[in-house]
Amino acid sequence: MNMTILLLAHYDQAPPGATCCLVIVHKHPTSCASMAEVMSVLFFHTMRYKLSAPRDASSDRFILSKGHAAPILYAAWAEAGLFPKEELMNLRKIDNDLEGHPTPRLNFVDVATGSLGQGLSVACGMAYVGKYFDKASYRTYCLIGDGESAEGSIWEALSFAGIKKLDNLVAIFDINRLGQSEPTAFQHDMDTYRMRLESFGFNTLVVDGHDVEALCKAFYEASQAKEKPTAILAKTYKGKGFPSIEDEENWHGKPLGGKAEETIAAVQAQIQNAGPNQLVPQKPLQEDAPEVNLTNIQLSSPPNYKKGDKVATRQAYGTALSKLAENNSRVIALDGDTKNSTFSNAMLKTDSSRYIECFIAEQNLVGVGIGTACRDRTVAFVSTFAAFFTRAFDQLRMGAISQTNLNCVGSHAGISIGEDGPSQMALEDLGMFRSIPGCTVFYPSDAVSTERACELAANTKGICFIRTSRPGTDVVYDNNHKFEIGKANVIRSSGDDKVLVIGAAITLREAQSAADQLAGEGVNLRLMDLFTIKPIDKDAVIANAKECGGRIIVVEDHYPEGGIGEAVKSAVALERNIIVKHLAVPSVPRSGKCDELLEMFGISAKAIVEAVKEIQSL
Amino acid sequence: MNMTILLLAHYDQAPPGATCCLVIVHKHPTSCASMAEVMSVLFFHTMRYKLSAPRDASSDRFILSKGHAAPILYAAWAEAGLFPKEELMNLRKIDNDLEGHPTPRLNFVDVATGSLGQGLSVACGMAYVGKYFDKASYRTYCLIGDGESAEGSIWEALSFAGIKKLDNLVAIFDINRLGQSEPTAFQHDMDTYRMRLESFGFNTLVVDGHDVEALCKAFYEASQAKEKPTAILAKTYKGKGFPSIEDEENWHGKPLGGKAEETIAAVQAQIQNAGPNQLVPQKPLQEDAPEVNLTNIQLSSPPNYKKGDKVATRQAYGTALSKLAENNSRVIALDGDTKNSTFSNAMLKTDSSRYIECFIAEQNLVGVGIGTACRDRTVAFVSTFAAFFTRAFDQLRMGAISQTNLNCVGSHAGISIGEDGPSQMALEDLGMFRSIPGCTVFYPSDAVSTERACELAANTKGICFIRTSRPGTDVVYDNNHKFEIGKANVIRSSGDDKVLVIGAAITLREAQSAADQLAGEGVNLRLMDLFTIKPIDKDAVIANAKECGGRIIVVEDHYPEGGIGEAVKSAVALERNIIVKHLAVPSVPRSGKCDELLEMFGISAKAIVEAVKEIQSL
Repeated sequence: MNMTILLLAHYDQAPPGATCCLVIVHKHPTSCASMAEVMSVLFFHTMRYKLSAPRDASSDRFILSKGHAAPILYAAWAEAGLFPKEELMNLRKIDNDLEGHPTPRLNFVDVATGSLGQGLSVACGMAYVGKYFDKASYRTYCLIGDGESAEGSIWEALSFAGIKKLDNLVAIFDINRLGQSEPTAFQHDMDTYRMRLESFGFNTLVVDGHDVEALCKAFYEASQAKEKPTAILAKTYKGKGFPSIEDEENWHGKPLGGKAEETIAAVQAQIQNAGPNQLVPQKPLQEDAPEVNLTNIQLSSPPNYKKGDKVATRQAYGTALSKLAENNSRVIALDGDTKNSTFSNAMLKTDSSRYIECFIAEQNLVGVGIGTACRDRTVAFVSTFAAFFTRAFDQLRMGAISQTNLNCVGSHAGISIGEDGPSQMALEDLGMFRSIPGCTVFYPSDAVSTERACELAANTKGICFIRTSRPGTDVVYDNNHKFEIGKANVIRSSGDDKVLVIGAAITLREAQSAADQLAGEGVNLRLMDLFTIKPIDKDAVIANAKECGGRIIVVEDHYPEGGIGEAVKSAVALERNIIVKHLAVPSVPRSGKCDELLEMFGISAKAIVEAVKEIQSL
Repeated sequence: MNMTILLLAHYDQAPPGATCCLVIVHKHPTSCASMAEVMSVLFFHTMRYKLSAPRDASSDRFILSKGHAAPILYAAWAEAGLFPKEELMNLRKIDNDLEGHPTPRLNFVDVATGSLGQGLSVACGMAYVGKYFDKASYRTYCLIGDGESAEGSIWEALSFAGIKKLDNLVAIFDINRLGQSEPTAFQHDMDTYRMRLESFGFNTLVVDGHDVEALCKAFYEASQAKEKPTAILAKTYKGKGFPSIEDEENWHGKPLGGKAEETIAAVQAQIQNAGPNQLVPQKPLQEDAPEVNLTNIQLSSPPNYKKGDKVATRQAYGTALSKLAENNSRVIALDGDTKNSTFSNAMLKTDSSRYIECFIAEQNLVGVGIGTACRDRTVAFVSTFAAFFTRAFDQLRMGAISQTNLNCVGSHAGISIGEDGPSQMALEDLGMFRSIPGCTVFYPSDAVSTERACELAANTKGICFIRTSRPGTDVVYDNNHKFEIGKANVIRSSGDDKVLVIGAAITLREAQSAADQLAGEGVNLRLMDLFTIKPIDKDAVIANAKECGGRIIVVEDHYPEGGIGEAVKSAVALERNIIVKHLAVPSVPRSGKCDELLEMFGISAKAIVEAVKEIQSL
């Protein structure tokens, strides 16, 4: 037993004194108390990290998946010396970044937690990068509550970790028996947890989570495991050491109120060595994470298409992915067993080691993607059918709070996919991604713009979404056309346009056809391709609408809510004299051929022609 | 071995002749071939159902979770005699309901499948109703692909089934080794599957999925299991019996093309008894599912509040739930360990047997809710924090395709929750639910309207969402106020209103305060409470806006996209001379006190006053 372990043993039951005081005073004291020893051992014995650079590339990673225990995380960092302990008293105040749940506004937090069950996927992404890309010695630790272990995303992540042999990953389960509103389903049935973890490919250690020496030993064993991730199943008690509160129900989240004084006294009495701080975190043994450059990522060659050629934008995504990967060794791709449909399989030819198969588990797919992008280690492109990103909406929502840089590419947009039917059709994806703060939403209409969208996304902060289509659409842009985020393109105009029609991809094709038809009748349409739905080119929309009699028709392969139509309506909401007619898919669609469906659900050339005739009288 | 088993044995390798022909001709033949024997045994030996009433209450239930194998489901029902086999040739045509993936447009389908991993949660809901509410002898079968078993929702559902001891449930895993784009992670490692299923509380049987007798035996064993659900792990081969295709990669989903003739011949040669149909499904042994009445559900007593009292709408939800449950024995409640926050725990006092604790697993929570509502057996209210419904967006999306009747109640709306921070704040929920076809979106502003919203939801088809708030808000309506879906209420007006302000709950409170302040300056505001955001009372919005100089301000505790603001902009999009100024939460919020946050993120009374001054000049 080395010196550090001895020191920790002195703090048995109640390591860092300040920690215990803090968790008693503030919210969620009982959820913090159950993990006090785990945190002490991790932060002052097991983990190796640089206090001077909390997001250092070569340092160990820690994710508190049970984010409601934020106070003890803050206390641990304060105890380590990152900031003054007095700062802890500003918890949850509006002018302080010590929020109710951790967010990366704090420099020691990589991702926001608080929506339960998400931390382990992110940790998997970090560990994957550590083992396979950085090939470095840092390790990743994730602390998970027993309540949140009911989340399927945890099991997706566990399965992934086992399959990918992430022996640099340790998942610690704080099994304190009590959920928010009642005991958990398995309480202290450690055998059930053990059997589950073993069957998911984990080196599984059951320990007394309040026994500091046992914890030290378990983390050491974890470090020796080869080709298997380790799970430490810590049997703990909620409110450990709090008289008449420990292991009792109805204390979840609550401050101790009138019981605070008694509890603090009881906890302080257990501290055997309360002198000045003798706990010092250990620095990384090796600074072996390579330097990487994620800036100015470019296509290795410009788009190379002929105008009028029919190319599916999903296919152009594959081409762009390859070209970006050729030019930057940190561009990676992840998919959920749809790589032959999304065309992310293009990465297999460029560099198969940079493709991560996540199988059919979209929550974990997105979570791993977020993890790989943490600390600016990779530029990650995550793809699946656009409809299936709805599976990961909560992860994406949290991704925005996490300030993640993630590129999501969703194929099979809308009814244009045809016969597979509504379950495979993305018709709410634009609305979903638009509602994510800071998200850039690309909806390229042809192959040239798709390649450029991917290039721009690779260099853009925040979440980017690129919506691609299944059927081929005409190449409409010159190969050297310059695209910008928030810059729309007028692709057809005359000196005498009656209506501004805004469409994208398949509906832009229909709009072209409607324009051809109406031109024969002497009615000119102006056609606009937004390129990015968010941010939207508000100035161009307004200016062009004004030149077309204040009449806009939006036609989109999406449900009426949240998509292009409402983005345009928002852009013009303060303009008197601009009206918007909106053609969208009004109800649950069905199987059928693409053109039949466009007709049936009112977003065909014919529907546009009719809409033009209607709006001309308004 | 009884007669039925003998008959099936004759069909060994290739039961219903038509089935095999069909699956060869159409899409996904290989995924169908792996489960041909399972389907034959289920449909013509094990299951008991009424062909005359495919959604009969006392019949066994079957869910094809791997919805892409739709052709064999259709073939089984055709073989059973529900419709002519010739109809199968219309698969995936626009004028036929035999869609690419199953939907309830077909009378033998309870829920749509095709987004993978969702069927088992629904099956759990059905089985729960069968065992605990109907107390009937029908059984529930769910067929799951091995690829989709990577979905976390499957593990949420498995855990639920084990915890709830659903011994009337059988989960069949078609372990055919191959995913869409590559082999599954565990291929034919049956031991891993067995260990996992056992650890999740299942009576687990590993069988040769192409051995009819072994399957019959396994289903019999399943029927004898007590207090445990059964998993049948069927080792199968994709494309079983197809020469040079069986167990080969790169055949997922594809029609056989030039190989069709050879394959059909090979399959036909294996049919030992191809004579006229001798397979007859078995009727239910007992018609023991009770009759239920889900119509005209009413509160047991009217709302009972005093105007001006401060009551949180989440608390009013609990009261309403109790009152509805008192009046109808089929009203049930489900929650994910937040019942003491959402107030669904009110059901525990009314009738604890009608509360289903689903623990922290929102995908399964929603899926089970959908399952309990199937075949009109219950009126289900599912609650959690509104933010966490994003976890189940894919289930909700599929719920709409499934024509489900589900009531979702989401608490803790927006930044008004305060110090817990952004991870707990629902700011995209209105957008999400609005984008679901046929969804009714209630956002009641006070306790009276909340109780009525719940009552209306209980009687409304489709998905209903009721958004409730954490802090108390003033009671603004009389107890006898009559509410209607799609009918807004003007709660303040004068003969000389300058601006129409539309808010809800906390922002309606702020609007009141702004109106008070501006009235002192001689500027009158008209205030509108929409009650339902979808459908929106378009006529009232337009008429009132016109009476207020064509000026609308929308103020909402939601991100700018997809919520009340864009709903209102859509309502007035074709009106020249109506403009909309929109106050919403513009970026990721943070921890702080409610009033501080309303101020910081621009949706306070002060912000409304400023907006009024701005818009007056437009």
